[in-house]
Amino acid sequence: ARFNYETLTDLKVYREKVLEWCRLLADQGLGSMAYPREFGGGGNMADYFAIMETLSYHDLSLVIKFGVQFGLWGMSVYSLGTEKHHRKYLADIGSLKIPGCFAMTETNHGSNVKGIETTATYDHSKQVFVINTPYPDARKEYIGNAAMHGRMATVFAKLIIAGKDYGVNAFIVPLRDENGNTLNGVTIGDCGQKMGLNGVDNGTIIFTDVVIPKENMLDKFASVNDAGEFESPIPSDNRRFFTMLGTLVGGRIGIPRSSLAAAKSGLTIAIRYSDTRRQFGPEGGAEVPILNYRMHQRRLMPLLARTYALHFGLQYLTSRFLSRTENEMQEIEALAAGMKSYATWSARDVLQECREACGGKGYLAENRIGALKNDTEIYTTFEGDNTVLMQLVAKNRLAEFRKAFGKMNAMGMISYVYENAKTAIAEKNPIITRKTDDAHLLDEVFHQHALEHREKTTLASAARRLKKLVDGGLDGYDAFNVAQHQMLDVARAWLDRIIFEQFTLAVNNASDTKIKQALSQLKQLFALSVIEQNKGWYLEDGYMEAVKTKAVRKMVNQLCWDIRKDAVPLVNAFDIPDQLLSAPIATV
Amino acid sequence: ARFNYETLTDLKVYREKVLEWCRLLADQGLGSMAYPREFGGGGNMADYFAIMETLSYHDLSLVIKFGVQFGLWGMSVYSLGTEKHHRKYLADIGSLKIPGCFAMTETNHGSNVKGIETTATYDHSKQVFVINTPYPDARKEYIGNAAMHGRMATVFAKLIIAGKDYGVNAFIVPLRDENGNTLNGVTIGDCGQKMGLNGVDNGTIIFTDVVIPKENMLDKFASVNDAGEFESPIPSDNRRFFTMLGTLVGGRIGIPRSSLAAAKSGLTIAIRYSDTRRQFGPEGGAEVPILNYRMHQRRLMPLLARTYALHFGLQYLTSRFLSRTENEMQEIEALAAGMKSYATWSARDVLQECREACGGKGYLAENRIGALKNDTEIYTTFEGDNTVLMQLVAKNRLAEFRKAFGKMNAMGMISYVYENAKTAIAEKNPIITRKTDDAHLLDEVFHQHALEHREKTTLASAARRLKKLVDGGLDGYDAFNVAQHQMLDVARAWLDRIIFEQFTLAVNNASDTKIKQALSQLKQLFALSVIEQNKGWYLEDGYMEAVKTKAVRKMVNQLCWDIRKDAVPLVNAFDIPDQLLSAPIATV
Ligand SMILES: Cc1cc2nc3c(=O)[nH]c(=O)nc-3n(C[C@H](O)[C@H](O)[C@H](O)COP(=O)(O)OP(=O)(O)OC[C@H]3O[C@@H](n4cnc5c(N)ncnc54)[C@H](O)[C@@H]3O)c2cc1C
Ligand SMILES: Cc1cc2nc3c(=O)[nH]c(=O)nc-3n(C[C@H](O)[C@H](O)[C@H](O)COP(=O)(O)OP(=O)(O)OC[C@H]3O[C@@H](n4cnc5c(N)ncnc54)[C@H](O)[C@@H]3O)c2cc1C
Repeated sequence: ARFNYETLTDLKVYREKVLEWCRLLADQGLGSMAYPREFGGGGNMADYFAIMETLSYHDLSLVIKFGVQFGLWGMSVYSLGTEKHHRKYLADIGSLKIPGCFAMTETNHGSNVKGIETTATYDHSKQVFVINTPYPDARKEYIGNAAMHGRMATVFAKLIIAGKDYGVNAFIVPLRDENGNTLNGVTIGDCGQKMGLNGVDNGTIIFTDVVIPKENMLDKFASVNDAGEFESPIPSDNRRFFTMLGTLVGGRIGIPRSSLAAAKSGLTIAIRYSDTRRQFGPEGGAEVPILNYRMHQRRLMPLLARTYALHFGLQYLTSRFLSRTENEMQEIEALAAGMKSYATWSARDVLQECREACGGKGYLAENRIGALKNDTEIYTTFEGDNTVLMQLVAKNRLAEFRKAFGKMNAMGMISYVYENAKTAIAEKNPIITRKTDDAHLLDEVFHQHALEHREKTTLASAARRLKKLVDGGLDGYDAFNVAQHQMLDVARAWLDRIIFEQFTLAVNNASDTKIKQALSQLKQLFALSVIEQNKGWYLEDGYMEAVKTKAVRKMVNQLCWDIRKDAVPLVNAFDIPDQLLSAPIATV
Repeated sequence: ARFNYETLTDLKVYREKVLEWCRLLADQGLGSMAYPREFGGGGNMADYFAIMETLSYHDLSLVIKFGVQFGLWGMSVYSLGTEKHHRKYLADIGSLKIPGCFAMTETNHGSNVKGIETTATYDHSKQVFVINTPYPDARKEYIGNAAMHGRMATVFAKLIIAGKDYGVNAFIVPLRDENGNTLNGVTIGDCGQKMGLNGVDNGTIIFTDVVIPKENMLDKFASVNDAGEFESPIPSDNRRFFTMLGTLVGGRIGIPRSSLAAAKSGLTIAIRYSDTRRQFGPEGGAEVPILNYRMHQRRLMPLLARTYALHFGLQYLTSRFLSRTENEMQEIEALAAGMKSYATWSARDVLQECREACGGKGYLAENRIGALKNDTEIYTTFEGDNTVLMQLVAKNRLAEFRKAFGKMNAMGMISYVYENAKTAIAEKNPIITRKTDDAHLLDEVFHQHALEHREKTTLASAARRLKKLVDGGLDGYDAFNVAQHQMLDVARAWLDRIIFEQFTLAVNNASDTKIKQALSQLKQLFALSVIEQNKGWYLEDGYMEAVKTKAVRKMVNQLCWDIRKDAVPLVNAFDIPDQLLSAPIATV
């Protein structure tokens, strides 16, 4: 018993501090930035994302608590509710007068959120809903703001009317009174210490016959009419639910932008340190900055390039979202899901490498890489698990593909493959597959073609594979599962191409020639790194021969070497205030 | 100012707890297990390693504190000192009566430890050494046991006699009195909160004219004689220092074995959970265990195979070390450096993947994956930074290569390459490079050849490259730097082959046919995963053609699928007590 594990961090202090920080920001009007002006908001969604990203240079528990309150809780009321809800709640949410939660996930249903089992049973005689957790493992879990501060929650539950299940809908449910005491029928648990984000009070919620008035149903997409009957403009429960989720896609923009900021912080710390840290040197000579070592450049420069690439990629995602029209929604949802996954995985890799690149110094809390890594660690899981999201992205790509070719019949497939082969044929002649001169390797047209070719080919080959599996007797569900690995390739290849294109546009738009030159090199490194990572694929496909992939590797080395000279200015350009960066090893 | 960062964990409580744990273990005689019986020890080095590994199923701060005290501190006295030191200190170190440190690293010199600047100046008139930190950044840094509990330290310092520098030597230096107060001239700092291992009190030490008696020099490899002159059987300062380091290679066995245990814990938690956690399912059907998903298998099964492979690889390292003879030392040092890097990087990857594979549950402290990851995070850095160690491994391989071919002249090189080409020629004929039948793909001979071929070819090509660079006018230091990336490939390819061979031996030695069958499949997966990861290389080299690498991918999928069925028994075979595993999601 003396060997028992113990938990030693004072969660309470940290959580209160983060709440206080949120208050200070709310007082400045930052919390309600995204809400319409008529409800006390700033009416500026773009600024809301910028706030999420900028706050991420400071403390990530703050960002997530802020996001739960003003994003998830507030925006769910805004997007799923109607004017009566907006009028009643939005101002108080934006001012943090009503701290609240977004209670979707349950212990037994995380990724498969459609399967949640909490019930909201309508009682027409009393004009109320009764909320229930049918069994312990159907409790709400991981809910931010639940363990301590939340007074209300948007609760997702299956609507039951007269014994009939109308699918998942959303309801405003009070959790605590003004003194913070939990209300009757509400049982809260504390998720306790986590790997990171310990300033956020995640908790579990069990509902036992919790009664809420009828008006608490967030009724934009479905409602119960005066006769006590279910009504919705979207008849399919499934489609309605995914439409509801679609309106919440903003969260999938805030998270990757936050992860981008964390990656930038990590790179700024690691690159500044690596530029000054000296270790080893030629016999008798002075010691050399570790960033002069080829291996160290290889470890950090491609990640710097990717982080720049994502900067432009996420700007693109944001602007697509802000200017969205109804019929673009499916594409934008796929884009958000994909970019969220790509960016958060990238931040994971970046911060891991930064930790190691700083040696022992990278392990000390004062240098903040550990906190950045541990806090963003869960970004790959929440707001949708990346592996699951990437499959949705691939399915969306396949759907687009199918649209383009009508029913995915054999002839359509074959002719597509043939067309693709024809356009690829020019690039697949030995002169191109073996072309290794510098000008070609650095050519943006080569990069674009290579990325497009991989995008198209992986997509067509996944489609072919799926068709074969289905023709062979598997149902769709099983066929997708067998091809999961390919599905991820399809999604990745699509995202690589889009991000590259956005990087290209950004370079073209740069007016300062020096900046243009520096960005252009980073873009080349980004493209060639992606190609190098996938060189096995390109060789298998015949798009490149060995001489060429070897030349790509050499060119990546060369670019790492060249960019190393600009590395410190390039991270300084992120313009993170030293006070927020705070790491002693990053001070110059 | 209200936004300042704050540190919230109570380090003091945790550190005291870990010290108490060490006391309990020392009382059982576990601390002195490796020391000779005549000095109160257990005389059993093999058991010492087993203790390090087994303790790693519990708390890793404990393992590291234990290793600092009984391994680094005690074994440095044992290996670098002579009988007078053994008699005076070993029993008290083993019983934890004298907590102590191993003080090598300095702020300005970590990897390049030969460059440390602390001085030990001999004063013949007083028969003492005076220890000094010449300037602040030459302070000892990260020293385990220094911040709170260490009463003495093995301090590495440049020996100065009559103004002449005799290179780095080791000295026993008292730090604190029996009440724990630091002694005159000793200034201790606290490294504070770290990303992990917060139960270990790492600190900095500055020495200001600290006087120690002459007998405190650990004088196995060098001493000051009665005339006050330097004496050593090894005249070169450089060689002497590396000989001293060589005697400490045991630390490079304890760490990878500890990381192996952590990886096993992580896999046991993640695989048991994935076997029971259900999410999604066919339309209308029951939900499916996530480990049934192909992608999930892909994420975990190859890591399970690699962890088994490393189990046997590290047993091999240990037995080579325990039965070492003088003239094997260089090889064993390279093996230890390489295995340490391979195993700790692998644990990093395993624990990262396990965290993500468990979704939100993997983020909760109660499930321990976070602690396992953060505590072992520094394993890739301490006891020698992996990137630096892998270069040493490669240099050792190149030295062996050179030995085999006399002076690395062009003719020798060419004929080696020719020979290698000849043996490869049989395998490079189109029948083999395109061979894709199952029997061949699963054939151990194919695996062994493929791994050997990569090992030999990367080595020869690195040698060729270096020769070219040197012929082109670079000095050796620069040439090695330019080729760093290749150096890592050389080291990795060597280790892959060795680990595979040890896995093969283990399979052959298994008597139970069912176990043999299960291990054999894991071994196939290990080999094919390595080949798949390097498929770009194999294609570039011409050792395989596209049809074959594609077939390898399919076979990896198939093996993941097949092994999935045994996955739970395979982690249960690690036999980690549930009480130590402790994670609620791992209980079955
Ligand atoms: C700190 C934190 C804060 C959170 N805050 C909130 C909140 O405020 N409100 C809220 O509602 N929720 C919240 N969540 C929940 C979060 O959204 C879920 O954790 C997430 O949706 C994943 O669900 P899960 O944890 O159940 O993982 P699971 O769905 O169980 O997934 C586990 C693993 O299985 C894999 N997997 C699952 N299905 C498949 C498949 N079909 N194919 C292949 N692999 C598969 C996944 O890739 C994953 O690696 C939070 C979670 C955490 C940890
Ligand atoms: C928790 C902890 C406990 C420790 N305990 C002890 C202890 O008890 N006693 C003790 O003496 N020491 C201890 N150490 C120190 C540890 O051994 C050093 O951190 C380690 O040797 C690495 O040195 P460094 O941190 O200075 O990294 P650096 O040497 O500064 O390395 C930083 C980065 O540069 C890279 N790099 C360096 N040289 C090259 C090169 N030539 N080519 C390419 N890349 C290069 C490395 O790969 C690394 O990523 C401890 C450290 C920590 C963090």
